[in-house]
Amino acid sequence: MRLAILGLGLIGGSVARSVRRDPAVSIAAWSPSGAGPRTAREAGVVDLAAATIEDAIVGADLIVLAGPPLACLELLDALGGELRPSIPGGATITDVASTKGAIVARANSLGLPFVGGHPMAGRERSGFAAATDGLFEGRPWIVVPGSVATSRDVLRVEGLARACGARPLRLTAEQHDSAVAAISHLPLVVSAALVEAVSGADGGEREDWSLVRELAATGWRDMTRLARGDPGMAAGIAATNATALAERLRDLRLVIDRWLDELGSDGGPGDGPDAARLAERFRQIRARADERAGDD
Amino acid sequence: MRLAILGLGLIGGSVARSVRRDPAVSIAAWSPSGAGPRTAREAGVVDLAAATIEDAIVGADLIVLAGPPLACLELLDALGGELRPSIPGGATITDVASTKGAIVARANSLGLPFVGGHPMAGRERSGFAAATDGLFEGRPWIVVPGSVATSRDVLRVEGLARACGARPLRLTAEQHDSAVAAISHLPLVVSAALVEAVSGADGGEREDWSLVRELAATGWRDMTRLARGDPGMAAGIAATNATALAERLRDLRLVIDRWLDELGSDGGPGDGPDAARLAERFRQIRARADERAGDD
Repeated sequence: MRLAILGLGLIGGSVARSVRRDPAVSIAAWSPSGAGPRTAREAGVVDLAAATIEDAIVGADLIVLAGPPLACLELLDALGGELRPSIPGGATITDVASTKGAIVARANSLGLPFVGGHPMAGRERSGFAAATDGLFEGRPWIVVPGSVATSRDVLRVEGLARACGARPLRLTAEQHDSAVAAISHLPLVVSAALVEAVSGADGGEREDWSLVRELAATGWRDMTRLARGDPGMAAGIAATNATALAERLRDLRLVIDRWLDELGSDGGPGDGPDAARLAERFRQIRARADERAGDD
Repeated sequence: MRLAILGLGLIGGSVARSVRRDPAVSIAAWSPSGAGPRTAREAGVVDLAAATIEDAIVGADLIVLAGPPLACLELLDALGGELRPSIPGGATITDVASTKGAIVARANSLGLPFVGGHPMAGRERSGFAAATDGLFEGRPWIVVPGSVATSRDVLRVEGLARACGARPLRLTAEQHDSAVAAISHLPLVVSAALVEAVSGADGGEREDWSLVRELAATGWRDMTRLARGDPGMAAGIAATNATALAERLRDLRLVIDRWLDELGSDGGPGDGPDAARLAERFRQIRARADERAGDD
């Protein structure tokens, strides 16, 4: 079994570290800068730090596109174009990016043997230095077969997920994009919108921002952590999952309108909303939030 | 110097632990259940676990209301009513609750020698067991003098803040409530609204919630941590700061509308919003988010 990983940051690097546990797999890695693959080669995490994509995919059974969504689209264009003759016969192509609809559609239109993948795991830090072989342990790894993919292609990608300790979960691209829009992309944009609402949008700064930011404590830090992530990655997510994300944002706007109704109402004694009703609403929300999986 | 603390959870307990470093101060504590004060007495953190509010405030120079906002309103009513004869002459009353407008107004209307306080610090855990003498170290402690307070009252409360290692910051109740609505209460309601938007509001459950919650990772956990806090505390905050909070929610709604415009626009190649413009927006947001104080 030979694996080619194109892009070797947090996710690609963690795939390499996880797969490395099986001595029967050889791993070649390429990235635009070459820095991650060089470090990984020196650490014995990959067998080859390839100078070019062609070199990386020689003899590969499975080619993993491990860049952000927009980079995956470019890699697919290259693999479906000038690099097509270099793809080994019978090789499977997969990715690990956060959106699936645009990427799977591109692979389909290029007629590539593609099975989209998305391991549901991340860390605050990025880059190969943050990669770890435990990142995917017990996490869902969504698998979205492309139109040209055979069942062998799908099994290979599910095998990669299992080799990384993850649980493969087969979905359509639409199911995936709607679900991650809710659980991952909406929180990202909400975090960004919160910063804009409080500090000033459109490049302007609110006059009270210098006071307000002095008071920031742990709650603000948590709620704005996603907004402090990589802007290029965030833009790629928003650009390639815009429709599902917009739908979730409209859901949120409706909920915010209900909060405005509630806060504007009068609970009885004439001095504000009903605290008991608010407490009941917060109690229901807490119960709901506690239902979700993925907790530490 | 004698301190009476009414309510001994995370904040009141941390005040006690901080002040305890000065052997010249004696501390009496009372709480509705009595559990925190008993534990604190056994641990030597307070000198007296008082059975009643009257017992706690005997001889006190400074009375600290350390319950949530709605409990503070009730304590003020009691101190301004049946307990008024028990307040030692020359004593100062303060609080440590998250909203100031309603509380300071109530104290003013009762003619109490009140200086509102709000240490800008917190922890995920609550209760006396989570209290620590380092909680307020280097943090702002907002001080809002009431209309009956003398400069000696204000200096006492600022002295308490400094004894806890905090930096006193004098504001009006309006400045405080608007600023904490932005940095603390808006994030709380946004966290709650996010849970409702994704899992279903009004007690209903969205049909995709069982799938969606399976995919939850660190981003979702961070963004919903505030929604998993104490519902009574959250309700008290929303109820006593409804006006400022609603104003901030309207600001956020405007920003969300701008995101919907951006996501619905077409960046050129006919397949979605412009990724470069989105990246620039995320870059500006990250720079803004990094400006704020209070980071670890």
